[in-house]
Amino acid sequence: MARPRPKPRAAPMDLAFGVQACAVALREGLARRLLHLEGGGNPRVLALAEEARALGLPVEAVDAARLDELCGGGVHQGVLARLRRLPAVSIPRVAPVPSLALVLDGVTDPQNTGACLRVAVAAGATVVALPPRRGATLTPGAHRASAGLSLVAPVAAPLNLARAVAQLKEAGYWIVTAAPGAGATDATAFDWPDRTALVLGGEERGVSRLLREAGDFRVALPMDARAESLNVAVACGALAYLWRARWPAPPP
Amino acid sequence: MARPRPKPRAAPMDLAFGVQACAVALREGLARRLLHLEGGGNPRVLALAEEARALGLPVEAVDAARLDELCGGGVHQGVLARLRRLPAVSIPRVAPVPSLALVLDGVTDPQNTGACLRVAVAAGATVVALPPRRGATLTPGAHRASAGLSLVAPVAAPLNLARAVAQLKEAGYWIVTAAPGAGATDATAFDWPDRTALVLGGEERGVSRLLREAGDFRVALPMDARAESLNVAVACGALAYLWRARWPAPPP
Repeated sequence: MARPRPKPRAAPMDLAFGVQACAVALREGLARRLLHLEGGGNPRVLALAEEARALGLPVEAVDAARLDELCGGGVHQGVLARLRRLPAVSIPRVAPVPSLALVLDGVTDPQNTGACLRVAVAAGATVVALPPRRGATLTPGAHRASAGLSLVAPVAAPLNLARAVAQLKEAGYWIVTAAPGAGATDATAFDWPDRTALVLGGEERGVSRLLREAGDFRVALPMDARAESLNVAVACGALAYLWRARWPAPPP
Repeated sequence: MARPRPKPRAAPMDLAFGVQACAVALREGLARRLLHLEGGGNPRVLALAEEARALGLPVEAVDAARLDELCGGGVHQGVLARLRRLPAVSIPRVAPVPSLALVLDGVTDPQNTGACLRVAVAAGATVVALPPRRGATLTPGAHRASAGLSLVAPVAAPLNLARAVAQLKEAGYWIVTAAPGAGATDATAFDWPDRTALVLGGEERGVSRLLREAGDFRVALPMDARAESLNVAVACGALAYLWRARWPAPPP
């Protein structure tokens, strides 16, 4: 099969840019090479280069044009890391108790994907299901928007999201779909299941009909009528912590 | 006193751009003139122009260069509204019961300001205190990032935030500061006061020491150590809805 040509100015998928994302890549052993701005004086970037050298990784000073080109015009702050292949994550066969899974359906904006993955790590989600070809969503822009946490988020790449939802059900998760409209339960008054797979929809169309119909419950954040909706990452944060309020993490 | 010169490419403060923000400006009677892209075919923009004409407002077709210039390079989607002066909001003398106030301390990124104001409207906050010279934070970029809701958010412009916090206390609010670190109460287990003024800090430095010391309580969202923090708007959403879960809105 022919490989699809990269979009113009699209950054290669095996890189992270920006100080935070590169710091996480180094700390988690996911970097295989570091490039930084030739002659740049950012002390945080220089510290990252030092750290990479100490780890025995190749470190290369390149000019701004090369960095800009590699990052597809993203704000790289003078540093990028080439990545190893991110570890594969599977949907668990048996859901831990308590546990939270996330399913992101049609979240295409890298800012939003990144911010949702940051929530997933912060709130301690067990697994996040993104659409297949996760490369299309797990982009360098998402790494940067997540402050690098998309690199450590437990992202599964199922064959398709309907299959992922079926696997989550088999594992013991209750499927809780976030979608406003008549019949939705107020998420602040909802009796959250101990094993919740929270399905969130994208910016334009929300959760697809197929997934809505597969859900066990449908919830919505109560809101002023003028608001209509919230940014998906903000909704993700609110819903994940409402779940967490009901099912606190065991002390570490 | 000499007027400060506008920054290069800064949009004038009395405008909103983008379809959503202009729709809110028209709906709320805040627009005084609509400009749209000459020859543009976006049906949502054309509908806004029609709506503005029906309201008796001047409507002008301008070229892309003029729109780009007015919007300071922001993504305007072919439409902008010049605004009337936004209505002034005061900190209430007596806090309604229950009620939520927000204090945004050092949130400078328009994306974040806008997203926080969208949360404020959605969650039904009574008042939002921004730093003085709210023009510096209540920008066209914030209007766009909030989907126009910053235009209807109850934004107060106190002389300074310490004074705003004192006024909120006098009104009966308990000051709840969101700041991680030793001694913070887990926000998911916190017994939220019925009248809560939630103080959130900016991207870089968090809540200033002065405001931290003025707080009655300090809370933090429990999170995985790798996460360190969340985007301020995501934290705002999570905390506002944890408050709302304890103090549901009266039925409309």
